[in-house]
Amino acid sequence: MTETAKAAFIDELNAALGAAVVTGEDIPAPFRHDWSGLPPVLPIALIRPRETDEVATALKIANRHGVTIVPQGGLTGLAGGAQPVAGGAVLSLDRMSGIEEIDPVMASITVKAGTPLEVVQKAADEAGLFLGIDLGARGSCQIGGNLATNAGGNRVIRYGMAREHVLGLEVVLPDGTVVTSLNKLIKNNAGYDLKQLFIGSEGTLGIITRVVLRLQAKPLTVNTVFCGCRDFPAVLDLLKGARARLGPALSAFEVMWPSFYDFMTGKLSELRRPLGRPHGVYVLLEQSGFDPEADSGRLEAVMAEMLEAGIVEDAVLASSERETRDLWAVRDSVSEYGKLMGPITAFDVGLQTDRMADVIAGIEAAYQARWPGAILLVYGHIGDSNLHLVANVPAAGDHQPHDDITDLVLGAVRAAGGTVSAEHGIGLLKKKYLHFTRSDAELALMARLKAALDPGNILNTGKVFTL
Amino acid sequence: MTETAKAAFIDELNAALGAAVVTGEDIPAPFRHDWSGLPPVLPIALIRPRETDEVATALKIANRHGVTIVPQGGLTGLAGGAQPVAGGAVLSLDRMSGIEEIDPVMASITVKAGTPLEVVQKAADEAGLFLGIDLGARGSCQIGGNLATNAGGNRVIRYGMAREHVLGLEVVLPDGTVVTSLNKLIKNNAGYDLKQLFIGSEGTLGIITRVVLRLQAKPLTVNTVFCGCRDFPAVLDLLKGARARLGPALSAFEVMWPSFYDFMTGKLSELRRPLGRPHGVYVLLEQSGFDPEADSGRLEAVMAEMLEAGIVEDAVLASSERETRDLWAVRDSVSEYGKLMGPITAFDVGLQTDRMADVIAGIEAAYQARWPGAILLVYGHIGDSNLHLVANVPAAGDHQPHDDITDLVLGAVRAAGGTVSAEHGIGLLKKKYLHFTRSDAELALMARLKAALDPGNILNTGKVFTL
Repeated sequence: MTETAKAAFIDELNAALGAAVVTGEDIPAPFRHDWSGLPPVLPIALIRPRETDEVATALKIANRHGVTIVPQGGLTGLAGGAQPVAGGAVLSLDRMSGIEEIDPVMASITVKAGTPLEVVQKAADEAGLFLGIDLGARGSCQIGGNLATNAGGNRVIRYGMAREHVLGLEVVLPDGTVVTSLNKLIKNNAGYDLKQLFIGSEGTLGIITRVVLRLQAKPLTVNTVFCGCRDFPAVLDLLKGARARLGPALSAFEVMWPSFYDFMTGKLSELRRPLGRPHGVYVLLEQSGFDPEADSGRLEAVMAEMLEAGIVEDAVLASSERETRDLWAVRDSVSEYGKLMGPITAFDVGLQTDRMADVIAGIEAAYQARWPGAILLVYGHIGDSNLHLVANVPAAGDHQPHDDITDLVLGAVRAAGGTVSAEHGIGLLKKKYLHFTRSDAELALMARLKAALDPGNILNTGKVFTL
Repeated sequence: MTETAKAAFIDELNAALGAAVVTGEDIPAPFRHDWSGLPPVLPIALIRPRETDEVATALKIANRHGVTIVPQGGLTGLAGGAQPVAGGAVLSLDRMSGIEEIDPVMASITVKAGTPLEVVQKAADEAGLFLGIDLGARGSCQIGGNLATNAGGNRVIRYGMAREHVLGLEVVLPDGTVVTSLNKLIKNNAGYDLKQLFIGSEGTLGIITRVVLRLQAKPLTVNTVFCGCRDFPAVLDLLKGARARLGPALSAFEVMWPSFYDFMTGKLSELRRPLGRPHGVYVLLEQSGFDPEADSGRLEAVMAEMLEAGIVEDAVLASSERETRDLWAVRDSVSEYGKLMGPITAFDVGLQTDRMADVIAGIEAAYQARWPGAILLVYGHIGDSNLHLVANVPAAGDHQPHDDITDLVLGAVRAAGGTVSAEHGIGLLKKKYLHFTRSDAELALMARLKAALDPGNILNTGKVFTL
């Protein structure tokens, strides 16, 4: 892009959007990168619209000038989907924030896309209802980004991915057309369900500006238990038994390999080890129920069965809010990676549950053979067939062998028929591995959709795949 | 289409697919119409492939000759989506039937698209699991058609629409490309979620050939109660209370207006009226739970509260399988319409729940003013904001004023911001009303998708919308 072309683009943006446009060194540092760990990139402009029409105007101008627009939400994505691209502008939704309506009869909430997830959760809670989307970055991430990436999190086992919570969307297409489908009905089969296109396509097909979400009944009881199992087959038996006996009350089933449990409880002095002795695998199990008189008894009976059958070796049931927080603290210690490990290479792979133990054992062996004594933590949402791996080679310092580690891990996932991303998305970091999981026919169809919706190829260009 | 062109198309089909092709009067009567009530149409050919490659071959030939292909499943659709079109061929999936795999660990089932829904349900049940899709036509409808139309049914309130049960699909695109995405992972965010395009697009974007479905834990208890409420606001209070206190155990909430209840129990001598005296509105409520020791007590306690608060005037709880069947028989009597009423005009509208009472009262008044004494039955899945209306004007005999009735009902739905189809889809019958529910921008985007996937416009041409 020539300086003249860039100046012409920025002039037109300034004329149309005025104060919403910032350029050069006036662009604050946070807008120059997301949480992917990729180095900051200075965009040619930062656009911060206050309303949908301004988003449309920006996209029309970008199309006329052939300039890439990168949509940005809370910038908490780990795959680089919101990372600025050289020569492109970024468009932040951060000023389009706020609850527009809560409808207690329809159990729905309508919000602007830039609203932080936690604000939506609190609004639902105050109305006596419950939002089934939750993840660690709740305070920073925005609902528009959650939907653009089809966010997962800890409670997918009970409530499903972000997609399943969306009733309606307002979206601006790359050409600036505003498509307003703020549907509140659970069932609406009148023509194509267009919103599905934009959920999980990482901002490459349109910019989400408003959202209608489905809310749930708020659980009346929550019980948490931390279990030690002998091995992974026992964990699968526990999952199967818990599902069959608790049904939809099973609201979390978080599994931690000893690599994770030992490292985190060893490094963080504030973490108490919930169980007295070591086990082969650890499970944090949560029950969310609607019968205050019976739920805890039911969970205790199920756990007694599991102990009796040898499926669980030891278990501790939280009996206070504080104990519940302590149990979750082990799993939630992932937010301390940066402090404990320095630069990491992180994965959110999906694997068939019954192949996980073997695939992880194979990866661990190959990893240790290549980088003896290096760190590889493993944990995940087993009920959703989603595992996280976090690697650090201490000897490599700031020059982690990201590509080699990724080739090793994702190569094993590919061989096992898994997915290179279960929840974080493809963005930039996993782009070259997308074909590990998707066939040529699938990739061609994705490209066909991108070309149909964004013929100028200006929206989040180069993310997910290269046309 | 000239006779020569038609003969060339059929010659090529015969050469490529041989015994899978039938023409002229050899085409059995059932393939000439679906359950929409539209008059039979003789297609120029019936193609009954046995495998995916044959579907691809048929579509490639159709593209070369510019001939429309209408995909057919169990032909139980009510909107005309599987109705043959003049000058077009039909392609039935009925020979592509059977369970390919049940995976108890992943809780998934892989089936061919032509498998009847009931066969899938039974296979899941035999594996100790449960399929959350259910509807009256279960014995005849096919799973491919259920997904192509994003079927609803009685248990959407608990398990969601058909879309929410799909993990993977194999689809043949209009140009004959086979896209195989037989994913079994709950979470898979690697690129666009392509399957969403084909679910609910009524066979206009691709032909579904294989399916991976998610299975659920099988409920351990089912309790059913039939309630009489004073009026619709009381029904909403009951819904709200049942949701808040039963959570996901609330597995059906079927509401019947007196028009429906009185007519069906009056006409069908085998139906016992569950309640002793008349009420303003009737509700069939089902609880599906996982605590055999507590569930029925919990439901009784909730019902006692509702009676105490005057929300429910009277209620009867089924205490045997026979009593459960008797209670459901009232709701399920809809299969007797043909016998009781002759030709009907039927609707599956969606409305915001809090507007239903007023909209229905308005429609009833206008309908009776126009056709005094004519029949209009109202019932529906209120928890999903979905209502059914069934109309018959006895004086009109076989010449029902379908268009006038439809204009009246859907005009009122449009004015209230509802949808012209909550679950049956658009097909041919609701096509001219699609713009009551969808904006110009939405319709243009649907057309853009259709053009991108089916540039020759040969797949189920003229269904849902006209390009």
